[in-house]
Amino acid sequence: MRAASRLMRDVDDGLPSAVAELRALFPHTGRAAVVGLTGAPGAGKSSLADRLIAHWRGLGKTIGVVAVDPTSPFSGGAILGDRIRMQEHATDPDVFIRSLATRGALGGLSRATADSVAIMEAMGKEIVLVETVGVGQDEIDVAGLAHCVVVVVVPGMGDDVQAIKAGILEVADVFAVNKADREGADRTTRELRSMIELRRVTQAAPPPGAPEAWEPPIVQTVATEPRGIAELSDAIFEELAFLDRTGRRAERDAQRARTAFLALLRERLLSTALAKLAQEQGRLDEVAGRIAARQADPWALAAELAGG
Amino acid sequence: MRAASRLMRDVDDGLPSAVAELRALFPHTGRAAVVGLTGAPGAGKSSLADRLIAHWRGLGKTIGVVAVDPTSPFSGGAILGDRIRMQEHATDPDVFIRSLATRGALGGLSRATADSVAIMEAMGKEIVLVETVGVGQDEIDVAGLAHCVVVVVVPGMGDDVQAIKAGILEVADVFAVNKADREGADRTTRELRSMIELRRVTQAAPPPGAPEAWEPPIVQTVATEPRGIAELSDAIFEELAFLDRTGRRAERDAQRARTAFLALLRERLLSTALAKLAQEQGRLDEVAGRIAARQADPWALAAELAGG
Repeated sequence: MRAASRLMRDVDDGLPSAVAELRALFPHTGRAAVVGLTGAPGAGKSSLADRLIAHWRGLGKTIGVVAVDPTSPFSGGAILGDRIRMQEHATDPDVFIRSLATRGALGGLSRATADSVAIMEAMGKEIVLVETVGVGQDEIDVAGLAHCVVVVVVPGMGDDVQAIKAGILEVADVFAVNKADREGADRTTRELRSMIELRRVTQAAPPPGAPEAWEPPIVQTVATEPRGIAELSDAIFEELAFLDRTGRRAERDAQRARTAFLALLRERLLSTALAKLAQEQGRLDEVAGRIAARQADPWALAAELAGG
Repeated sequence: MRAASRLMRDVDDGLPSAVAELRALFPHTGRAAVVGLTGAPGAGKSSLADRLIAHWRGLGKTIGVVAVDPTSPFSGGAILGDRIRMQEHATDPDVFIRSLATRGALGGLSRATADSVAIMEAMGKEIVLVETVGVGQDEIDVAGLAHCVVVVVVPGMGDDVQAIKAGILEVADVFAVNKADREGADRTTRELRSMIELRRVTQAAPPPGAPEAWEPPIVQTVATEPRGIAELSDAIFEELAFLDRTGRRAERDAQRARTAFLALLRERLLSTALAKLAQEQGRLDEVAGRIAARQADPWALAAELAGG
């Protein structure tokens, strides 16, 4: 555990030795069930994560948690008021928790998340829970890293959430309607069900003999009581079993590898270009000043640096 | 206006002619005041934007609006229920509105935003309002594109918002406490003031003769009534005047150019690398499959493609 913590720090600090270690761990990764937990701020994701962890610990599972917080992009460090609740698991050696915040200009949050998941897999964790705020490019990547994506919604959150819902339908494997003791929980559940239904009927009918499709179950939860946690856990395990039964796990693993690889590639490309710029001290500042004064052409400079 | 709309579509579609046109416009950009409007979902940013636009129209200003919505990353198209309210300005030829959603694997939202701002500047709009959901890497970039960043908060939104606040303090030029008719508005205002105060006293004292520092004003607003809109507008204009008076506008413009250039560079680098992959049909899928089977080394492949 201490070695894993150190490696994660080394990865963050960009030490070349960290890559060598990640490469050595690589053959030992890919055996955990990776569960993504996402949803708008205030949906109660952290409380729900907390309850799920307690439930899984009760089943004897070992757990890794990667808490991704792109909402604190400027401070550089995750504060995560809610996350403090997870501290009750902090003394449990079978629960390993890692918090990540946005890491500057390289935008390497997705890469850092993928690396953290890999390290936890190599540690032999049976379930790796990736919790994240439900927005932006990072979110797409996090969904792409999981075998099961749980989307947390709450009753009656208005227009903004409606807009989010339209987008997440395609990646949700399981819906949790949290704070289900609130007014409107049944209505929200019905709306989600209609959306899933609508999506099914508007899609082309599958050809005869086509593989079975997964239909996202909707589970009502109240993390604070707690209520519905076992049902949520069961829904997740059913989806994971579905992947195994239908041979879809390999597809999903290829998609996960693709997501992680693109995140790595994106960061490498940018760091290569920035290193080129950095070779000439202060050149980026000078370039920015010249662009601002309309004396330099950003497209020509980008083409020169990107080779495209 | 029709030409601007077409150019924006061409930019979105990645037509090579669009870059040529952007280059031709480039000398005519950089004269507008760019105002960023950000905050958590549900804070009432769109209503506030709507009221600010009406106020500025009353002052005879011409306005461009770029509405950035990274919360619908999967659908590809912005839905933006709230945004419909802006339609009242849709028939006003001096208000030009453009909506952008997250655009796939290249993560080019920041680049698209910067291009849209530039086109509106070239159209001669006096104020360009960039509205966005307050999270993630895209958010950093949007803040970096503005001369004045307005952060919208609402009373009593709990832990998640507290975490956001810690991060945004550094980029906020003006705070709007919206929905100020709600309980807790004065408390939220006091908390923000304490945070700003705390930040000032914990920073090193400026050397004698150091340039004047800007202290973010806090304005209470109720977009629905409306209340506080003129005060918010005044606070924004004061900040813009401060930039001019202290010679900081040039600094800010260099920072804006740097942000836009990095967004362009990031996208170009990735598209160059993806084009390399695409040369061999299906290679990315094959690569992902081999990585998933632990038969290929993602770091070696990334180094090969990124040249680093």
